Amino acid sequence: MIKIGIVGYGNLAKGVECAIRQNPDMTLAAVFTRRDPAGVQIQTPGVSVLPLEKAMEWKEQIDVMILCGGSAKDLPEMTPAFASQFNVIDSFDTHANIPAHFTNVDAAAKESGHIAFISLGWDPGLFSVNRLYASAILPQGKDYTFWGKGVSQGHSDAVRRIPGVADCRQYTIPVPEALDRVRRGESPDLTTREKHTRYCYVVAEEGADKAAIEAAIKTMPNYFADYDTTVEFITAEEMQRDHAGLPHGGSVIRSGITGWNGESHQTIEYKLTLDSNPQFTASVLVACARAAMKMKARGNTGCYTIFDVAPADLSPMSREEQLAHLL
Amino acid sequence: MIKIGIVGYGNLAKGVECAIRQNPDMTLAAVFTRRDPAGVQIQTPGVSVLPLEKAMEWKEQIDVMILCGGSAKDLPEMTPAFASQFNVIDSFDTHANIPAHFTNVDAAAKESGHIAFISLGWDPGLFSVNRLYASAILPQGKDYTFWGKGVSQGHSDAVRRIPGVADCRQYTIPVPEALDRVRRGESPDLTTREKHTRYCYVVAEEGADKAAIEAAIKTMPNYFADYDTTVEFITAEEMQRDHAGLPHGGSVIRSGITGWNGESHQTIEYKLTLDSNPQFTASVLVACARAAMKMKARGNTGCYTIFDVAPADLSPMSREEQLAHLL
Repeated sequence: MIKIGIVGYGNLAKGVECAIRQNPDMTLAAVFTRRDPAGVQIQTPGVSVLPLEKAMEWKEQIDVMILCGGSAKDLPEMTPAFASQFNVIDSFDTHANIPAHFTNVDAAAKESGHIAFISLGWDPGLFSVNRLYASAILPQGKDYTFWGKGVSQGHSDAVRRIPGVADCRQYTIPVPEALDRVRRGESPDLTTREKHTRYCYVVAEEGADKAAIEAAIKTMPNYFADYDTTVEFITAEEMQRDHAGLPHGGSVIRSGITGWNGESHQTIEYKLTLDSNPQFTASVLVACARAAMKMKARGNTGCYTIFDVAPADLSPMSREEQLAHLL
Repeated sequence: MIKIGIVGYGNLAKGVECAIRQNPDMTLAAVFTRRDPAGVQIQTPGVSVLPLEKAMEWKEQIDVMILCGGSAKDLPEMTPAFASQFNVIDSFDTHANIPAHFTNVDAAAKESGHIAFISLGWDPGLFSVNRLYASAILPQGKDYTFWGKGVSQGHSDAVRRIPGVADCRQYTIPVPEALDRVRRGESPDLTTREKHTRYCYVVAEEGADKAAIEAAIKTMPNYFADYDTTVEFITAEEMQRDHAGLPHGGSVIRSGITGWNGESHQTIEYKLTLDSNPQFTASVLVACARAAMKMKARGNTGCYTIFDVAPADLSPMSREEQLAHLL
């Protein structure tokens, strides 16, 4: 049994708890939180919720610690700190800062003799590994990543910070014509605006200036200014009734050519359609905990990403079962 | 530079030759054939075509030998024999016999201290590795593999063996309704007939009994009896004009559930749309030649499959480039 600890208890951590239950070779050892543990009710019977500062006392009872903090403030400190005491896994997703995060975590894990996996999930994660496979197989080609239809939590949060906004759910939607052109192998050059549209459901505070809110959203640099954005005001009840879930997904497509004169067109598409983004991300983290234990047992220490995982290590099947049933 | 030898010069081998040209870190060392080399014209200038029995004299000039023989008769003997002298790669695709082939190749490669990769391509190969990733991430779920629309060479050959048939091209076509149901997450139980249809373009010999040919096709056990099959007779000119290519493709789909009560539906789809099946298969083999060299340099010997390849090893990029550009 692989004994897993969870740090945090937000949506991702709850997904990790569910995923552990789906894997018979894993067990949840404990949940660690910065909140008052008395106020945190988890779902797994008989498992303790403990204050974060008690984690180090659990070194012997935990094989892998899954860190469910945020990429902006938590993980840059938390992952190296925990890697000096535990095998760790995180979902650090600030793409531009991955190289620096890798270096920090690698140094901590190598010094302590632990193994660490960073930036797991689906993007970064499964989408990344599909970009890698596809570009290695079709060296002459072009990559496209489409996200959605799904809820972007970063964009929803950005809208919530606008004065007068009580709540927001922002959906990222691929432009169907752009997707079709890429799938047909046209290899178009597409601007940001041509690839995705954004749709915001907003609950305004009473008396708020809706026109001002809409203008603030549509002109927000980086988040919305480069997109065709639609803003729709709804009630708090409608938000609760129609937008409680966190669906997401998307497609990684490589459109390439082969043949002596590039005469054959070849398209590889990897597509996710997810009812629950955090539960799916959590499922990737948990499968990688298995790979981490196998790699550690072979003597590997330091920091790794999904690129370094031989797929066989993710599976609970033996080599014989894999050859017979999956190959 | 990775120096590659090719055994055989059929469609797959020609694809390997083209793929080597697309990868700046690889070079074609020589082609070995059972035919009279004088009658084999390859495309790469300055590269020798040699009789198969000369291969062993080229041990020092070849890093990886890519074996482009057939799975029925060639590879079961050829791959172990070559693995005792070379690092080798094959595309052995008789699913039921993979475990035995693995054992034979593993013994030969381990004894000689070489590395061998078997059963590479897209199915077995990329489809297999996607079945593995998806089943590890979504342990509660169901796998579906759809092939086509594309030319099945095995089925085309089977029809060509019927008396009175001059030529045949058999297309395997997924049933659109079945694909839609799977993509919608219905997780249906589907019979063979409900998943694919088969369409045969047949050139009959002059004076042949077309009704008898059609009946022989539609009732052929294993190949056609379990499918709805359409037979259309065309002329040799139409065959040449409209069916010269070898397109193929398909989708591997896993339809799974997550959440404490399985309340979230999650779908993973990996889809290929290929103008040229042999060129794409060849591109997978060539990318794996790079991985084979990296793994060999780390001391690995014996037989491996795509399940054992850390994706990072397929890419010509450094770790730093991979983290910055692909993750």
